[in-house]
Amino acid sequence: MKDDAEKIADVSRRSLLGGSAAIAGLGALSGAAVLSTPNVAKAATGSGAVAPGDLDEYYGFWSGGQSGEVRILGIPSMRELMRIPVFNRCSATGWGQTDESVKILTENMLPHEKEFWKDKGGFPLNGDTHHPHMSFTDGSYDGRYIWVNDKANTRVARIRCDIMKVDKIISIPNAADIHGLRPQKFPKTKYVFANGEHRVPLPNDGTVLDDPSKYHAVFSAVDGEKMEVAWQVIVDGNLDNVEADYQGKYAISSCYNSEEGVTLAEMTSNEQDWCVVFDIAAIEDGVAKGDFKTYDGGVPVLDGRKGSRYTRYIPISNSPHGVNASPDGKYMMINGKLSPTVSVIEMAKLPDLFADKIKPRDAVVAEPELGLGPLHTAFDGRGNAYTTLFLDSQICKWNVDKAVRKFAGEDVDPIIEKLDVQYQPGHNHTSMGETSKADGKWLVSLNKFSKDRYINVGPLKPENEQLIDISGDKMKIVHDGPTFAEPHDCIIVHRSVVNPNQVYDRNDPTFDLAKARAKADGIEDLEYAEQVVRDGNKVRVYMFSAAPNFSLEKFTVKQGDEVTITITNIDDVDDLSHGFTISNYGVAMEISPQQTASVTFKADMPGVHWFYCQWFCHALHMEMRGRMFVEPK
Amino acid sequence: MKDDAEKIADVSRRSLLGGSAAIAGLGALSGAAVLSTPNVAKAATGSGAVAPGDLDEYYGFWSGGQSGEVRILGIPSMRELMRIPVFNRCSATGWGQTDESVKILTENMLPHEKEFWKDKGGFPLNGDTHHPHMSFTDGSYDGRYIWVNDKANTRVARIRCDIMKVDKIISIPNAADIHGLRPQKFPKTKYVFANGEHRVPLPNDGTVLDDPSKYHAVFSAVDGEKMEVAWQVIVDGNLDNVEADYQGKYAISSCYNSEEGVTLAEMTSNEQDWCVVFDIAAIEDGVAKGDFKTYDGGVPVLDGRKGSRYTRYIPISNSPHGVNASPDGKYMMINGKLSPTVSVIEMAKLPDLFADKIKPRDAVVAEPELGLGPLHTAFDGRGNAYTTLFLDSQICKWNVDKAVRKFAGEDVDPIIEKLDVQYQPGHNHTSMGETSKADGKWLVSLNKFSKDRYINVGPLKPENEQLIDISGDKMKIVHDGPTFAEPHDCIIVHRSVVNPNQVYDRNDPTFDLAKARAKADGIEDLEYAEQVVRDGNKVRVYMFSAAPNFSLEKFTVKQGDEVTITITNIDDVDDLSHGFTISNYGVAMEISPQQTASVTFKADMPGVHWFYCQWFCHALHMEMRGRMFVEPK
Repeated sequence: MKDDAEKIADVSRRSLLGGSAAIAGLGALSGAAVLSTPNVAKAATGSGAVAPGDLDEYYGFWSGGQSGEVRILGIPSMRELMRIPVFNRCSATGWGQTDESVKILTENMLPHEKEFWKDKGGFPLNGDTHHPHMSFTDGSYDGRYIWVNDKANTRVARIRCDIMKVDKIISIPNAADIHGLRPQKFPKTKYVFANGEHRVPLPNDGTVLDDPSKYHAVFSAVDGEKMEVAWQVIVDGNLDNVEADYQGKYAISSCYNSEEGVTLAEMTSNEQDWCVVFDIAAIEDGVAKGDFKTYDGGVPVLDGRKGSRYTRYIPISNSPHGVNASPDGKYMMINGKLSPTVSVIEMAKLPDLFADKIKPRDAVVAEPELGLGPLHTAFDGRGNAYTTLFLDSQICKWNVDKAVRKFAGEDVDPIIEKLDVQYQPGHNHTSMGETSKADGKWLVSLNKFSKDRYINVGPLKPENEQLIDISGDKMKIVHDGPTFAEPHDCIIVHRSVVNPNQVYDRNDPTFDLAKARAKADGIEDLEYAEQVVRDGNKVRVYMFSAAPNFSLEKFTVKQGDEVTITITNIDDVDDLSHGFTISNYGVAMEISPQQTASVTFKADMPGVHWFYCQWFCHALHMEMRGRMFVEPK
Repeated sequence: MKDDAEKIADVSRRSLLGGSAAIAGLGALSGAAVLSTPNVAKAATGSGAVAPGDLDEYYGFWSGGQSGEVRILGIPSMRELMRIPVFNRCSATGWGQTDESVKILTENMLPHEKEFWKDKGGFPLNGDTHHPHMSFTDGSYDGRYIWVNDKANTRVARIRCDIMKVDKIISIPNAADIHGLRPQKFPKTKYVFANGEHRVPLPNDGTVLDDPSKYHAVFSAVDGEKMEVAWQVIVDGNLDNVEADYQGKYAISSCYNSEEGVTLAEMTSNEQDWCVVFDIAAIEDGVAKGDFKTYDGGVPVLDGRKGSRYTRYIPISNSPHGVNASPDGKYMMINGKLSPTVSVIEMAKLPDLFADKIKPRDAVVAEPELGLGPLHTAFDGRGNAYTTLFLDSQICKWNVDKAVRKFAGEDVDPIIEKLDVQYQPGHNHTSMGETSKADGKWLVSLNKFSKDRYINVGPLKPENEQLIDISGDKMKIVHDGPTFAEPHDCIIVHRSVVNPNQVYDRNDPTFDLAKARAKADGIEDLEYAEQVVRDGNKVRVYMFSAAPNFSLEKFTVKQGDEVTITITNIDDVDDLSHGFTISNYGVAMEISPQQTASVTFKADMPGVHWFYCQWFCHALHMEMRGRMFVEPK
């Protein structure tokens, strides 16, 4: 047994030891290891700093990776301003426990998921977010929604930017493990494209197991407004990242594992994989004409494998990864990962490609060799691109036009500058860089390893996210930002685009659930309700909070009752959030200004149980409490 | 109904509107509202900044409040370096799901808790941490442990600082809702004192409900090494914060609600409350002599109510809150909250107090009037104290000796400076300030409201934690730090004290569970185990991880099997954490270098389910995966 282990370990150590190295022995690359040293990128301190009392210029919306959340950062201060629970269970806000969040987490599950989870708490308590992306109008952000994927449990969630909370989560049928996600940019986001990364049988019900030839990867178009899957397309290979164009006509996904293997050796053996171009109008026409099958969820599933009129496959060197549209709309960059190149597709050539007037590789108009492990490319709106080099631990700044000219035969060098980052960058992102309004001020490099950049916090280290000033001729690292597991991607949005509410609107649809329940109990004015309604062994308690009081000082239930507590925070002062915790009952939730929140639990433990406000609200916050009496059976 | 509501709302608005105001109408205080303005505290930008590649000088250990976690920050950069899941469910690390964490979360539950949680997932998924405190030797931090309370579910947890993970959680019997927590400082932490804040019947089994005269608050001494409750003491009033002395002889808790009321009006009606002094030796003597009763958990419970030889009650103005020992060991500061004063107790007078040679108030040697809402006091080691004024939104710097001299009749002003902070500070903390080595470099003010200090993130706002340079004559705010819900307290520890491991020791006791299971399966060498053991409908899968591979590329189970997966990360490179996620099964966990982790679940969903590494580890991280086949029934 140790022979295998040592072999694997040996490859591992050669591959990663020292923080950066060529992935020797895998046959994909050559080139000497480039070791980064911690002080190479030393830069002027504090030039990204924001003085106490001053405001950041940009919102950063950050994936929280396997933490399952989305985070809001201020840019350029790189301070984390808020966590938005999405797929995770949040102790503080009660996300995953409140009636409102449980509804969102469960209402769009697939039947077989409901069956699976019915004796396991109802839904998973984890997620793996990668790509948070904002809704677009006319090629730039419109401040309405953020969508984000869950790779772990094959879901897509939507965050409402007026309240910065999730309002919809849907399970994606037929696909497995949503990875890449991007909204349409033009004219206004209709579809949110979502890549099912892993290839699984269709349907995946156990009738096919170890027969990879019957596995498929599935591309989904989610209607971002309705939060329903509009249609799906089966493709060849494993779907990785996806990007939408600036015309509303195409989406392009990178694919790896053209071998359709299931082991590492199989998956990386071919010298070439591809990207898949989806023709949206053709697919919609196919749906209209009934050229699809249906499986789980009743969604139209079209066959987009090689030879289909819905797709084109453009060969790209081994295992392409990131896909990024240039802000002028002209190009799509396919990042090589195991090839040192970025392949530049000219979008204007795609109609001819679908019309079979040109060959797939004719759409590639540049393919600069940038360095080892190119993963993602960002843009400054001035014609330059910034590509992360994972293995080289560098950002490569290059000029797109020069790359095109060089590919056409001209003797020019597209590479402008390489900057060491610490260490191993994955995604990167520029301010407004995924929109037509890319402004070229800031670049964030999301580095997967921090190693020695921070005081040691034990075996588990933070990521290291570096803020780079790209406004001048030279790139300059101005801040190292540690982050918990594990932001894959982020977007940087000018603050003029985002305008959240300070307090909840009393007509917020989040409250519909509680309002309907109150109405059924004869309560018209939920806001000031303070009563206890018994309905068999169900008890519904209505109260409100106003610092430093809950309107009910006590209430009584019987052991074994199912208790629903609905609270409205009638304070309408900015930042005056309350909380509601029941001691020793595992119950806690947020109630922000003018919000209604509710929670249901079984009152199995007799005795006196204090409930208290856990969100600091007032000088007498600690005294803001009351008692739940649970009479013994 | 609206009458009540409007009355409460009216009090609320008067109390808090505008960010800072006197709590008019509650009869406790007079004084005009002092409105803070955002730019008063404008300070030199970036003097707390740490350049990219440079290291912080201090570790900050931060409570995560109702998020249930503890956080590690770097000081002075104020960057969050790591989250340590404690009472919360963590999607990223699998805390609350792995067999190892579930053991820690459940093994020390009380029988009635086990009964309550048996059909509710086994344990609560929330916590409310307030006070993280490190172990002491000879009056200063020794870098071994951090203890932290859970107010929400009456627990105390311990974090091992070598791996920065929780290794023990205990439920505190008889008490309700642990608030204040402090370890003994001298000669070496034996007890960790834990205040049960809320008064409840003893036992709280439902035989007593709405009869507050039969409610009690209970003080607990936890043996910090064994993580068992050594003894408990019943007191009068509600226990709030607690502090230990520098001699190992006394603990002092603030108490509010001497009225022993249950409504806000009742709780704040008396002009005076008290602090309780606990005589540790006398209590240990009482335990030895059998002067106790036992209730839940079999713990000795002594009667320390007024008149007891174990305690003394020192009258303090209405609702005292923070309790802080000066670093020279001479004084204990009791912060007034609803009184504008801090009462200074001279520790040297306590033997005479217990010998009844002096009256309780004779132990008070100073009582400076500092401003509205004094909550907590920190120290610089140069004789000065820094008290947060919640209502005034200020830090008041004052000289302790001068306060004592003034109280003795001398005409001196102890107040040195008042600094506006934004807004409403609760706890504060100085670098090494709760030890004999207080070094007077940095002060953090943990402000409960951020209001306009950040770009708007919706109705729920972050806290605002300000870093203040106190090394010079004038206090200077150098950084505004937003934080998610809701750090109550923190400690700032010099980095020379904390020395975590870079990778796990293979003899770590965390792995004992997995090792014992492997041994029972005939596996001696867990590290390199790669096999599948079937035992009836239980299946145990052993594998290891080495970037970019899991040693098993696939395994097969039957629908309905209970599956336990045990994985060892054999990579021994710093920062090379792996993860293990099973798609659509809600399973995810961290496996850091040289760590073994395991997880158990029911394989109810047939089909092909990919497992993958979710902690970025290698250029081929995304390809690091395998398949679980679940054969249908």
